[in-house]
Amino acid sequence: MQLNIRQFSSQDTGFKTELSKLLSWESVSDATVQERVESIVNRIRTEGDDALVELTNTFDRRDVTNASELVIEADELAAAAQRVDSAIVDALEKAAARVKAYHKKQKQTSWQYQEEDGTILGQQITPLDRVGVYVPGGKAAYPSSVLMNVMPAKVAGVGEIVMVVPTPDGFVNDIVLTAAHVAGVDRVITVGGAQAVAALAYGTDTVPRVDKIVGPGNIYVATAKRMVFGQVGIDMIAGPSEILVVSDGLSNPDWIAMDLFSQAEHDEDAQSILISTDLEFIKAVKASMERLIDDMSRKEIIKTSLEGRGALIHVASKEEAIEVANIVAAEHLELSVESPEEWVKDIRHAGAIFMGRYTPEALGDYCAGPNHVLPTSGTARFSSPLGVYDFQKRSSIIHCSHEGASELAKIASPLARGESLEAHALSAEFRIIDKQ
Amino acid sequence: MQLNIRQFSSQDTGFKTELSKLLSWESVSDATVQERVESIVNRIRTEGDDALVELTNTFDRRDVTNASELVIEADELAAAAQRVDSAIVDALEKAAARVKAYHKKQKQTSWQYQEEDGTILGQQITPLDRVGVYVPGGKAAYPSSVLMNVMPAKVAGVGEIVMVVPTPDGFVNDIVLTAAHVAGVDRVITVGGAQAVAALAYGTDTVPRVDKIVGPGNIYVATAKRMVFGQVGIDMIAGPSEILVVSDGLSNPDWIAMDLFSQAEHDEDAQSILISTDLEFIKAVKASMERLIDDMSRKEIIKTSLEGRGALIHVASKEEAIEVANIVAAEHLELSVESPEEWVKDIRHAGAIFMGRYTPEALGDYCAGPNHVLPTSGTARFSSPLGVYDFQKRSSIIHCSHEGASELAKIASPLARGESLEAHALSAEFRIIDKQ
Repeated sequence: MQLNIRQFSSQDTGFKTELSKLLSWESVSDATVQERVESIVNRIRTEGDDALVELTNTFDRRDVTNASELVIEADELAAAAQRVDSAIVDALEKAAARVKAYHKKQKQTSWQYQEEDGTILGQQITPLDRVGVYVPGGKAAYPSSVLMNVMPAKVAGVGEIVMVVPTPDGFVNDIVLTAAHVAGVDRVITVGGAQAVAALAYGTDTVPRVDKIVGPGNIYVATAKRMVFGQVGIDMIAGPSEILVVSDGLSNPDWIAMDLFSQAEHDEDAQSILISTDLEFIKAVKASMERLIDDMSRKEIIKTSLEGRGALIHVASKEEAIEVANIVAAEHLELSVESPEEWVKDIRHAGAIFMGRYTPEALGDYCAGPNHVLPTSGTARFSSPLGVYDFQKRSSIIHCSHEGASELAKIASPLARGESLEAHALSAEFRIIDKQ
Repeated sequence: MQLNIRQFSSQDTGFKTELSKLLSWESVSDATVQERVESIVNRIRTEGDDALVELTNTFDRRDVTNASELVIEADELAAAAQRVDSAIVDALEKAAARVKAYHKKQKQTSWQYQEEDGTILGQQITPLDRVGVYVPGGKAAYPSSVLMNVMPAKVAGVGEIVMVVPTPDGFVNDIVLTAAHVAGVDRVITVGGAQAVAALAYGTDTVPRVDKIVGPGNIYVATAKRMVFGQVGIDMIAGPSEILVVSDGLSNPDWIAMDLFSQAEHDEDAQSILISTDLEFIKAVKASMERLIDDMSRKEIIKTSLEGRGALIHVASKEEAIEVANIVAAEHLELSVESPEEWVKDIRHAGAIFMGRYTPEALGDYCAGPNHVLPTSGTARFSSPLGVYDFQKRSSIIHCSHEGASELAKIASPLARGESLEAHALSAEFRIIDKQ
């Protein structure tokens, strides 16, 4: 199948403008969505479980009479695992073990130090009490996402993990429940949409109020998360998934073609970009794609994604490739090059960096260990993969000795008076030793 | 002056409801604010410097003809320091040195580990390229806030720090510029409001686009920050400041009264709460407050704040005091008790913990070392003080050996097929050794 993928070169005039156009993405929740979500959130806040049941029956075409029917307890999750193909259960367990091992390295611990005068300063690290994990239902139900969202919270030591997943028409995905079981979810509630987000943020009789909500969702879920931000913590609001593959031209073109497909198959808005210093290699990858696409079960999605948002970019040098990679700040950056360790130190922005020819993104998506929840749409410029640190928080510790307080008060006092904050000044001055 | 401060006890019926009412705070930016901010943000995006100059002239009553007049370069900051009282410059420098020393302990470094088959996993830590710091102008201009917002970014190694501060009627606060100089700000731009936030988020010819915006501001600034979130990173949107003082009854009542005042003097919405197991002590603190308030220059603000949002709470035991402290999840928690180290391990939620009788909040506000930008309104349940970690970001590192990739592919493949993602499966399977 012929593919009309945008192709350009860093030598073209207007290259940076072209690149910027390629990368631009804006997800706008229009006023209608905004209003509908606001009304749903308000109903859950005021009517609690009654509204939750009614909205769930309406949107998910269900027939629930009592909110308790929405709850799946931990023992039922274990039962679901019995119904799933053992090869999948085994793979989920192996993946969970690897994800856990990696995330343990991210766990932060409290620290403190003492100054000469006896004053102690430090930082106390604690896990969140309770976290809500949103899992989409229906066809986009990804068990791997359950692992990736739940495991860091478990490693952080979060007290209770509540998962919500819509079950349209009552259809329950056993693999998703198995992933919840393997990851250690405490309770699943079969609700979705803005109503699920609102219930987690404010609590109902059935859904406990959580401290943070993580996990992907559609525009209603994203809008609701943005709305409840502040009442609870939220993770980043994700845009479409993207990959940037950088090749020195010595990779197997079929492998690179399939790596690009693996991103494009997610959905029509997904973005796959190849950068290479080798124009012949770019042509070879394109030929591989045109040959391989015919056999792909999701070929229509792949074609739409590649032709709409994909690109093949020829650059003049390694330095230019790195510069472009830093402008893109890709969610997934694959460095399919010889000695990638010589490239990686110059990469300033990327969600995850897949190094060498044997590290396709798919391995990171499922089981390498690092998280697959990554900053999209260039937000790697300022944000990080989901991690244990997202489920821990810090409290500053200040414990002054009398002598220490006395000396600090002499610094604080003129600054407080400079800001016309007299009570601040006096509160400090009260602790000055000579003044008592 | 008599003070009508709410007083209640954990033994009252409906105590938890009363407590929850006391703590409730909702900052709503109404539709009018929302629309005005949206229009300002759009004008800056489309018209750039022209709109920035026009809006600044209008809102700040200025007479700027060219955007270049808005810029204060680093050498002019140094010159401002020459005009400021040397005692203040000295205090700023001492405070900055202490803040720097503490924050250095927060700096995270990259790590990696190798598995038996040669696969390398890790996390690469990099600083943000460019950060914007918003500093309010006029009467709420706090030089200490400049230090607290800029120092963590400096310690993180941020490449460039741009500060914006409105100068209504052209009035420039030399102490604020001195703080910027001491902290190491690269450039100050004298703009404020939603237009400053938009300029930092999208860039104009004069204002460079930044990767993250931090710093406090009014409702227009907060609304604009929420609007540009995603385009750039932002810090938490702060509510009114609060303090919770816990005393065992053996503290000096005057000291505690002044500590409560130091919070109340910020503004009418600020919240000061005292908890004690000792009812007599609560009465003594109230008497101290009624005696001391008459001499306070900001007594009207203090009175309004204490009577509107303050509270004196009697609890039955240390355990109850800790339980209430964890419900409040205060921005500032002062443990004015004997052996506070025996209390602190049970504190799960607090922005900063001030331990013992010699650690008033004011010392932490200016110079103890930890940051004074802290989670307000109970958000300490899920968020942390501003820190170096807010100006660093992480990229996951995955570098599979051929053998490692081959084994991981055998886990990834069934999971990918279970999610109907065939290209993911094939991309992984291509790296299986026997299959080649």
